[in-house]
Amino acid sequence: MTAVAKLLDDPADAVTDALRGLAAVHPELSVDLTQHVVSRGDERRPGKVGLVSGGGSGHEPLHAGFVGLGMLDAAACGAVFTSPVPDQVLAATKAASSGGGVVHIVKNYTGDVLNFQMAAELADDEDIEVETVLVDDDVAVTDSLYTAGRRGTGGTLFVEKVLGAAAEKGLAVAEVAALGRDVVSRSRSFGVALSPCTTPGSDQPGFDLPAGEMELGIGIHGEPGRRRVPVPATGVAREVARTAVAAIDEDLPLAHQDLLVLVNGMGGTPLLELQVLAADVVAELDARGARVARALVGNYVTSLEMAGAMVSVCTTTPELLELWDAPVRTPALRWGV
Amino acid sequence: MTAVAKLLDDPADAVTDALRGLAAVHPELSVDLTQHVVSRGDERRPGKVGLVSGGGSGHEPLHAGFVGLGMLDAAACGAVFTSPVPDQVLAATKAASSGGGVVHIVKNYTGDVLNFQMAAELADDEDIEVETVLVDDDVAVTDSLYTAGRRGTGGTLFVEKVLGAAAEKGLAVAEVAALGRDVVSRSRSFGVALSPCTTPGSDQPGFDLPAGEMELGIGIHGEPGRRRVPVPATGVAREVARTAVAAIDEDLPLAHQDLLVLVNGMGGTPLLELQVLAADVVAELDARGARVARALVGNYVTSLEMAGAMVSVCTTTPELLELWDAPVRTPALRWGV
Repeated sequence: MTAVAKLLDDPADAVTDALRGLAAVHPELSVDLTQHVVSRGDERRPGKVGLVSGGGSGHEPLHAGFVGLGMLDAAACGAVFTSPVPDQVLAATKAASSGGGVVHIVKNYTGDVLNFQMAAELADDEDIEVETVLVDDDVAVTDSLYTAGRRGTGGTLFVEKVLGAAAEKGLAVAEVAALGRDVVSRSRSFGVALSPCTTPGSDQPGFDLPAGEMELGIGIHGEPGRRRVPVPATGVAREVARTAVAAIDEDLPLAHQDLLVLVNGMGGTPLLELQVLAADVVAELDARGARVARALVGNYVTSLEMAGAMVSVCTTTPELLELWDAPVRTPALRWGV
Repeated sequence: MTAVAKLLDDPADAVTDALRGLAAVHPELSVDLTQHVVSRGDERRPGKVGLVSGGGSGHEPLHAGFVGLGMLDAAACGAVFTSPVPDQVLAATKAASSGGGVVHIVKNYTGDVLNFQMAAELADDEDIEVETVLVDDDVAVTDSLYTAGRRGTGGTLFVEKVLGAAAEKGLAVAEVAALGRDVVSRSRSFGVALSPCTTPGSDQPGFDLPAGEMELGIGIHGEPGRRRVPVPATGVAREVARTAVAAIDEDLPLAHQDLLVLVNGMGGTPLLELQVLAADVVAELDARGARVARALVGNYVTSLEMAGAMVSVCTTTPELLELWDAPVRTPALRWGV
């Protein structure tokens, strides 16, 4: 299967060019095209806790698309599927710092963990207090191609939104970090691929997935999941919903829980299909006695043009729901303002 | 090239199942799973002009994803790439009617035009005054597979958003319709495909587009465009931006204009690529002395999993910008509330 051509200029400049585009249509953001750091361009309250995330590019809108009022203060964008280096994370940390300390939201991949840790040490040298929240929400596999322990995936969106609201509200850095660890402990994800994806500049997909098969438990860089199965002739979305919700429920019992739910497209799957999957996911949750408090359906944590979807949930409380509902204004998530 | 499997249950039920998903995650909407009509579930001010649109499915979030406060009151969803029948449009018209008349926003395809016209006559029999705004913003071709005259594509979003705000503001039905015709006269689009797409239940793409070629001036159902060219090794996004903006500028001079800009993904193209294209589109507009007043980058008017993008612009005024910025709360477009 020949890969579809990419709408890029020079594959080697894909991230720089994409950030140039983000800057061109979002004058409210400050975009450093050398360091590949995106930060809020507006004044923040002195002492507000700064929120920083980042990781490899290719997962857009994650993370740069979540920079703005009520969410991240800055994001460090690595090369495609590659951790940002410590200097980038340090630059993002400085851009996010308003004197109240900074929280790093780090997806659990070995490179990200190491580079954020080094950046935190460098920031400490400059008297910026950094707390770290490690996101490891993916129940599909323990230990993977780039990870010791579970991978960080769709649940990252819950963490970034809730902590963004908490930081605006004035919580202290240790409180924001503690809340982040609580949100992580409540978040679970499971993804499925129907096609592979190809990184810019490569002429081969990152992994091999024959048409007619799907990979259950896929990672967001095409890391292997639990198993590969033939795509059934009918009931594909039901099968995906059942597998994902069962895997999550087995790990975190969902009965009687109020949930934030994300039915997330991996990049190449149209919204028509994501809506069908959403119907089946809600039916599966219903059948387990869980309630959908809020839901998002769309492309939020992607893997280039990979076809497939991920189901993420976060068990919630009235306090968490209030933080979820608080105003947010970012390129990819906006309400209340 | 074998098509990627679809995340559906039964291809014949794709639209019903997708609407079931929309209903499951948007309890604020009223979804008629028999008629395939989506309408606002909240009370509207008596006498408010009702806004109705609709068309074939497969273009999600258009139109059902634009139902809500500040945008459409109801949408009629046809089968994939197939006009809704008059009964569906009539049902949507009744759902949207609050006594102040209804405006039909109709994309210029022969089936849509006929069926909305029949529905308008049926509504008239029930004493609902209907005005029609025909959207024909696509500059690529005159007369096409399903169209006499120009096709209605990305500009539909500008019309639906601006008229939605005008209706909330209390304009009368004739005023809303006149404003709609003005917005259409200010809107232009041009699209490009890098891959074809396959309708649910079919085992072949709707048209043939070999890997390594792109179709300039594509329609949103894969109707032929102006010409097919080899995808260059580098500068693909620049070539697309240049072609699209030149075609638009030739038809509607852009110099000194303030623009609403939509850099729209066709469904299968990742946001990383759309952002690269956005950078090039803004550079092209800049070079012509046009200014970007507001811009959206993402999948808004799609063609299933087609890879490619469309550039849409609308020349604006302070009054139109105020309507654009007014609060909107729909599944796919939300701000200010």
